[in-house]
Amino acid sequence: MGNIPVSLIPRQVLKNKFLLGSKKVKVMESNLSLWQKYQDWLYYHPDLEFYLDISRVNFTPADVEALAPKFDRAFRDMVALESGAIANPDEQRMVGHYWLRNPDLAPNAQLREEIITNIRNIEDFANQVLSGTIKPPNAPKFTDIISIGIGGSALGPQFVSEALAPDVPPLAIHFIDNSDPAGLDRLIHQVEPRLNSTLVIVISKSGSTPEPRNGMLEMATAYQKHGLNFPDYAVAITGVGSQLDQTAIAEKWVARFPMEDWVGGRTSEMSAVGLVPAALQGVDIQGLLAGAKEMDIATRHPSFKQNPAALLAFCWYVEGKGKGEKDMVVLPYKDNLKLFSRYLQQLVMESLGKELDLDGQPVYQGIAVYGNKGSTDQHAYVQQLREGVPNFFMTFVEVLLDRHGPSREIDSNITMGDYLSGFLLGTRTALYEKGRGSICITVQEADARAIGALIALYERAVGFYASLVNVNAYHQPGVEAGKKAAASVLKIQLAVIEVLTQSSTPLSVVDIAEKIGEADRVEAVYKIVRHLAANGRAVLEGNKGTPAKIMVIMGDKCADGVC
Amino acid sequence: MGNIPVSLIPRQVLKNKFLLGSKKVKVMESNLSLWQKYQDWLYYHPDLEFYLDISRVNFTPADVEALAPKFDRAFRDMVALESGAIANPDEQRMVGHYWLRNPDLAPNAQLREEIITNIRNIEDFANQVLSGTIKPPNAPKFTDIISIGIGGSALGPQFVSEALAPDVPPLAIHFIDNSDPAGLDRLIHQVEPRLNSTLVIVISKSGSTPEPRNGMLEMATAYQKHGLNFPDYAVAITGVGSQLDQTAIAEKWVARFPMEDWVGGRTSEMSAVGLVPAALQGVDIQGLLAGAKEMDIATRHPSFKQNPAALLAFCWYVEGKGKGEKDMVVLPYKDNLKLFSRYLQQLVMESLGKELDLDGQPVYQGIAVYGNKGSTDQHAYVQQLREGVPNFFMTFVEVLLDRHGPSREIDSNITMGDYLSGFLLGTRTALYEKGRGSICITVQEADARAIGALIALYERAVGFYASLVNVNAYHQPGVEAGKKAAASVLKIQLAVIEVLTQSSTPLSVVDIAEKIGEADRVEAVYKIVRHLAANGRAVLEGNKGTPAKIMVIMGDKCADGVC
Repeated sequence: MGNIPVSLIPRQVLKNKFLLGSKKVKVMESNLSLWQKYQDWLYYHPDLEFYLDISRVNFTPADVEALAPKFDRAFRDMVALESGAIANPDEQRMVGHYWLRNPDLAPNAQLREEIITNIRNIEDFANQVLSGTIKPPNAPKFTDIISIGIGGSALGPQFVSEALAPDVPPLAIHFIDNSDPAGLDRLIHQVEPRLNSTLVIVISKSGSTPEPRNGMLEMATAYQKHGLNFPDYAVAITGVGSQLDQTAIAEKWVARFPMEDWVGGRTSEMSAVGLVPAALQGVDIQGLLAGAKEMDIATRHPSFKQNPAALLAFCWYVEGKGKGEKDMVVLPYKDNLKLFSRYLQQLVMESLGKELDLDGQPVYQGIAVYGNKGSTDQHAYVQQLREGVPNFFMTFVEVLLDRHGPSREIDSNITMGDYLSGFLLGTRTALYEKGRGSICITVQEADARAIGALIALYERAVGFYASLVNVNAYHQPGVEAGKKAAASVLKIQLAVIEVLTQSSTPLSVVDIAEKIGEADRVEAVYKIVRHLAANGRAVLEGNKGTPAKIMVIMGDKCADGVC
Repeated sequence: MGNIPVSLIPRQVLKNKFLLGSKKVKVMESNLSLWQKYQDWLYYHPDLEFYLDISRVNFTPADVEALAPKFDRAFRDMVALESGAIANPDEQRMVGHYWLRNPDLAPNAQLREEIITNIRNIEDFANQVLSGTIKPPNAPKFTDIISIGIGGSALGPQFVSEALAPDVPPLAIHFIDNSDPAGLDRLIHQVEPRLNSTLVIVISKSGSTPEPRNGMLEMATAYQKHGLNFPDYAVAITGVGSQLDQTAIAEKWVARFPMEDWVGGRTSEMSAVGLVPAALQGVDIQGLLAGAKEMDIATRHPSFKQNPAALLAFCWYVEGKGKGEKDMVVLPYKDNLKLFSRYLQQLVMESLGKELDLDGQPVYQGIAVYGNKGSTDQHAYVQQLREGVPNFFMTFVEVLLDRHGPSREIDSNITMGDYLSGFLLGTRTALYEKGRGSICITVQEADARAIGALIALYERAVGFYASLVNVNAYHQPGVEAGKKAAASVLKIQLAVIEVLTQSSTPLSVVDIAEKIGEADRVEAVYKIVRHLAANGRAVLEGNKGTPAKIMVIMGDKCADGVC
């Protein structure tokens, strides 16, 4: 068999044939067929030193043919979107994150100039902070950053910081990406010795999203307590003219950077949202932009087979039958990429997880994404991936360069990096043997250009996939429902507190619900008083295991705006 | 309606009825029915201040009845396991992690004494390190810990550190949980200024698992380079008599702690694996043990309805139809619990993700687990959870205490913690409205007792669920396949290097595969030489996009054990 030319071996995928036959020759056929499929479908980008391997996805020529018309449309949609069409019909917005890394593509000269100016301003600002030209009132330089933001205003900056910040960055960054008082207290406690040299970046398009607003107000209080004037430490990244923007102007904050209307939160890493924190940590933001620009060009290629984003979207479609039937498990085999899957969770799930398609028909679309890093996760759940519910496909991310500098041999001619490489290849094989498909992305190094390229690749793949399944990738109507439900809980809380404050006798939760005119919301009332009581703001009498019998009285903890 | 007694409202779940009807009365019926269901099924543990709410899981009395015989068996299995039966038949091992927090249950006096002595030794050791009695040769005290371990030897310690370490712990802990040279270099670079006061803990049952072995060898090299004698900084946590144990004895390491044969990696947090790092960070390990012991007692309750672990397993079964049809999304609404879902990924997926059941029949079991924290993840993917593929159920973890110390009011009578609480309740409602089920666990505070209780709760729930679906929860046969495949890649690498070293002319990957007698493994050969070349250890000539045409020559980078 060894001497048969590779070209004579049948090219079609021998789906797991080697599992069926016991003869050695079949194993060889299969390995060589896979090798042929690998070569036939290998995508390689020489400038980016980027490989995409889809040979371990089970698809047939019929799949390629069946999807061709859908891809025709996806390519047309892409062209329209990039020429400034309203790609987000619900919100009547253009979708322009592509222009951020290639301002020449912006639909008019003014936008083009704004983009260029913004990037220049960001670089100037970062240089001035790093050099100490912009400095805190009572310290020679800023030493730390607290970045306050949630969703797209946290995930990109966190991913890029973990991936690209120098080992010992000029400014150490910390994130407040929640509304948890204890989490905030912990961070303040840790940064306290350097609070007078800590820059606070508040990232919020409207400035009214509760989580960043809460973080900002609490942080301002903390600065005050330490006798520091918060505006001397504060930077706003927000929509021009937003509530936050107005505050920043009125209070004379250190700096303001704009969030553009035509950039969505989950595609904002190359806007001020991502670039300001990155530049302050010494990340090569020009590399990030250049890698994204290069990948954008590559993913405009009109031929499906030579377009890595189209190939990715194709695999997702084939694996999940266009209905998200399989989860996307993402495992980069490199520590600095460990937040990639969290970043993709938002990009993929918020973009594709839609009830209605563009024609208003219920489709319940989406693809669930999870993963951390290899080989770490091999010791967590590859057991289930290989043997258990076959409800996923895998994406491996391989980084060829092990490290800068030499490696000691662990065993003769084997380094630590060889082990990591072997684990990836071995796991890919072990999963494929059991019929579990995988995609493999390979880059030479996980540097700024590669990260920019990866972000751009997935942004485009999500766009293509949205076209394939006919959904709007750029809105998030389902998020509103949770916000409204949360607001309704807070409204009930205010009514509950009023009733309790006015009552001279203990009340049951049923009594309270009736008194506030929400007789059916007993459970919400109960949850609210339980939470108040746990924080000393109400007192519950009775057995907590029988909530309907509990009697509630108001605590007297809150006074002068402090609870 | 407001005046109709709650008891008159029908008790059965009106599945999403309020979505169908537009009349107010239907909404009220539904809210009150749910409140009744909440009360009927509420589990409350007064000592642990622990609540379990399964009212938003869609089940019927018929489901309870149908599963009763399976639960009878699950309870019998539990009793047998706790009396020292061989609960892991494949590996002929007892399963004894329950004894760690209640040594009186150990099957004999010797084991009992060992457990008690181990914990005392751990506490003594930690106290001596913290006080400086045990100290590094050239510094007054240890300041940092590098913990080397993977899988169960990393996930528990990481989760507990994030959850329970003081804001500014006496020793700062860092983890090496992979085989990534660049990740290791980054950590060494960061810790370098304090390397002479950094304790290294190597955690590996056999000592031969490649990842911790690689980490240990590389770290020893780093200490050597800095003129430090590694054994003066090293602690081993390993099986008695293992390769690592022998090294630690021979080289006179600072300390050794045993890993018991009857404790599996994913249930080892209460053994030396978890307790040594925790104690060194100032975590209340007695609280951890006490919480787990208390929860173990609670989850021995023979009545299904009064046993929180049985209720959990029941919900998992109902939601996924006993086949893992739905993913388990775990969202604790508290920053310090953000690694809980990663911890559970291993515990649940490695325990339940099995191809064969206990009778040897193929079943492809398991439950996929993912999640980070709320409200953060609401801004990442709750869009999909509410609107998209309905392939999951949710577990909320609620922590009632907002923080230690007072809160400022963000709005009148509303604190930051009220917002967080509102987000959880709102999201739970928004998901349930769309037919997405959820479990809610509530604790007063995420302290050591609560964390111990949570770990014990899920350990038991996994055990129950394994009984329900008839799989061995305590082995991981699928992990071996990946290890073997990886070893085979490294074996090929050695042969490739030999062939290349001996060849005076460039070879194609097909040539090399033939010469090493693995003519069908061309792809593996290609991947190996690509990785070698990326690290300067081989040279590839030709277009990287057409791998079969590439010609390979050996580099001359490796010499004297360094590559």
